[in-house]
Amino acid sequence: MTTTFEHAATATPGPVGRPQPDAEVTAAVQDVARRSQKASRVLATATRAEKDQTLHALADALVAASGEIVTANAEDLARGRENGMSDGLLDRLTLTGDRVVAIADALRELAALPDPVGEVVRGQTLPNGLRMRQLRVPMGVVGMIYEARPNVTVDAAGLALKSGNAVILRGGSAAASSNTTITTVLRAALEARGLPADLVQSIDAYGRPGGIALMQARGLVDLLVPRGGADLIRTVVEQSTVPVIETGTGNVHVYVDASADPATAVEIIMNAKTQRVGVCNAAETLLVHSDAAERFLPAALAALGGAGVVLHGDEGTRALAPESVEVTPATDEDWATEYLAAELAVRVVGSLDEAIEHIRTWSSGHTEAIVTRDLAASERFVAEVDSAAVMVNASTRFTDGSQLGMGAEIGISTQKLHARGPMGLAELTTTKWVVHGDGHVRP
Amino acid sequence: MTTTFEHAATATPGPVGRPQPDAEVTAAVQDVARRSQKASRVLATATRAEKDQTLHALADALVAASGEIVTANAEDLARGRENGMSDGLLDRLTLTGDRVVAIADALRELAALPDPVGEVVRGQTLPNGLRMRQLRVPMGVVGMIYEARPNVTVDAAGLALKSGNAVILRGGSAAASSNTTITTVLRAALEARGLPADLVQSIDAYGRPGGIALMQARGLVDLLVPRGGADLIRTVVEQSTVPVIETGTGNVHVYVDASADPATAVEIIMNAKTQRVGVCNAAETLLVHSDAAERFLPAALAALGGAGVVLHGDEGTRALAPESVEVTPATDEDWATEYLAAELAVRVVGSLDEAIEHIRTWSSGHTEAIVTRDLAASERFVAEVDSAAVMVNASTRFTDGSQLGMGAEIGISTQKLHARGPMGLAELTTTKWVVHGDGHVRP
Repeated sequence: MTTTFEHAATATPGPVGRPQPDAEVTAAVQDVARRSQKASRVLATATRAEKDQTLHALADALVAASGEIVTANAEDLARGRENGMSDGLLDRLTLTGDRVVAIADALRELAALPDPVGEVVRGQTLPNGLRMRQLRVPMGVVGMIYEARPNVTVDAAGLALKSGNAVILRGGSAAASSNTTITTVLRAALEARGLPADLVQSIDAYGRPGGIALMQARGLVDLLVPRGGADLIRTVVEQSTVPVIETGTGNVHVYVDASADPATAVEIIMNAKTQRVGVCNAAETLLVHSDAAERFLPAALAALGGAGVVLHGDEGTRALAPESVEVTPATDEDWATEYLAAELAVRVVGSLDEAIEHIRTWSSGHTEAIVTRDLAASERFVAEVDSAAVMVNASTRFTDGSQLGMGAEIGISTQKLHARGPMGLAELTTTKWVVHGDGHVRP
Repeated sequence: MTTTFEHAATATPGPVGRPQPDAEVTAAVQDVARRSQKASRVLATATRAEKDQTLHALADALVAASGEIVTANAEDLARGRENGMSDGLLDRLTLTGDRVVAIADALRELAALPDPVGEVVRGQTLPNGLRMRQLRVPMGVVGMIYEARPNVTVDAAGLALKSGNAVILRGGSAAASSNTTITTVLRAALEARGLPADLVQSIDAYGRPGGIALMQARGLVDLLVPRGGADLIRTVVEQSTVPVIETGTGNVHVYVDASADPATAVEIIMNAKTQRVGVCNAAETLLVHSDAAERFLPAALAALGGAGVVLHGDEGTRALAPESVEVTPATDEDWATEYLAAELAVRVVGSLDEAIEHIRTWSSGHTEAIVTRDLAASERFVAEVDSAAVMVNASTRFTDGSQLGMGAEIGISTQKLHARGPMGLAELTTTKWVVHGDGHVRP
């Protein structure tokens, strides 16, 4: 859901190059991964009660070490200021006593969620008497590569532990001191509970080559989740041989159908665009059926403009803009852009087909919404728009794990493999087929 | 499930290199993929009845074109003989009238299976009144890269179509003439039913660079499934930026526990090793608890040796071998080898822990079985062995889609992401979140 990314792009070009890893760092990171693998086995068979008590213990330890963490964070902040970090980034990097408490509380909330491990996904007795079950089990070793916000360190560790996995963390260098202190606190708390400290390991000490070694530790790392901006995610996807889940890019559309109630449509686009900008489920383009344009667009553009949204429109849109609202001409770049800001592209389309075609051309497959009173139009939109989430008469902002009742969320996947849309704890597990027989052999 | 692979390894080294694709071929293959994407939209909203009728029409067309297909196949066989292809491979490449009928029948069996598309995976009404459903939908475009057996061309097309996907085929050059003819027949049959021929496309004409372009067509191809030997699979995994599902490597273990009934254990290892060699769910290593060794191993080794199984054993095993049975000393290479032949490694272990540790060290995570009468031992084995399938008192040969009641199978996944173990039609789908509101906005 976050958008800023301070890992510089690597020097290696484009989609087909993979950087050569450093042999020494590779060996060290593989050793880290092997220790994670070993530690993960202890957790794989832990009960939910044991895991939840551990999450509470980690939360307690963080609060107890709050002073230490804030001191380490001050070093990161000082370095950030020296390096000219923006106020926004500095704010996201900042930890205070209250923020540490909030981070610890997130672990306690995780403890309250059901445990996905052990769930029977399918099961039956086969005609030959074999008893077959498909059970949810932990992945094993999960890697997380993320940007500077130090809360992600705790969040990632908590999500991994709750789902029975060991975690290897690679945080942004801007938060190095905070992350080191937090990791040390978490590891000590694990040990104090008789669990392997190696359930939580950091490879920050190995710098960028360490990150590359992690991406290529196939067979040792079961899943890699990048959390951060588009550049970070692209880099991880392109350079990994380890399975990756791509998260977060949202070029999100709201389509106002011919039959839409204008007031509802204004409410939905205002919520989708302005309730929180800079998140992946915020709207970036508004499509309006020409039959609805005259009764909807003037009010919508006035409301959006009044809320400080910078507007780019096609000719049909600009013709309907109130005089008080500036709408600059939209280009293909506007249709392609995830603004992540108070900025919106607006286009009048001649039909539902044209709206669907626009979405097919420009969407990143995250979330699209239709506002309509026409059942057939809603059904076609749902069937033909190929995105992780499709909303009918609801804001795109609902594409969110907690809003959809899944509890904590690792991210929003825009890929089709393994997880699509909000990813909860279950998406950090895999399955195992367990078959019981009585000496059954295959005829 | 197949094991021989006639794509030569590429010249590009190891796990971190990716070959540079050919620009012209890349553009052509991307164009193919775009046409597949377009065609897939037509199928995505087709009913099960329409898809099943199409599968029957394809089957009819294949049988009608049987003569043509067998003639084309004769060209492949002649080329194979010229190139010194082994008898086994020639047999797998051969198509006869009867074999074409069998291939067509497989399409009719697919038609009889339930349609995964449209299944509601999860659904609820949220406290705020939003109605939320997670539905199964087709992936979109599925790529298949496979070896010489031309039946895979039909099989892959059928599986993809039944699950609502367009398919791009890259077959082995050894079967080029057969595959070209089959693809032409399938495409014509699709058109005759008013469906886009581009639902089934081949990129064989673009040779190896075409395969590489397919592996790197991220964003255009939703899933790539390699079917073939270990080299093919490794190449695809390492060179792809498109999501891949790894299938098929099975270094499979049978562990005979201290409490095992010796007769049951002999039946299970005989079935697991000899019922069919050369398949990924056949046993490759037999582990025997030392307490069971004396009453089990002499009979087991005699039975295995009598069935022509070449045996490699540790010292404990060799000491218990009947005089008539030769057991050569086993090395680490034996523990690591997936023989895919009438050959077995045998080791006596001192405990269940030692057996689990051996499996952790050497298994490929496909299938392992325990033969035991001890409940606690069975439960520890199931919990601690981290493989796609774990059998208790049943042959490892049951790890198979049709044996486990899933119907047709695309392969057996040994990875943890998206699909683990036998992959059926559902594994060729993804999900879509569909949310209905009444003007809901996020507070």
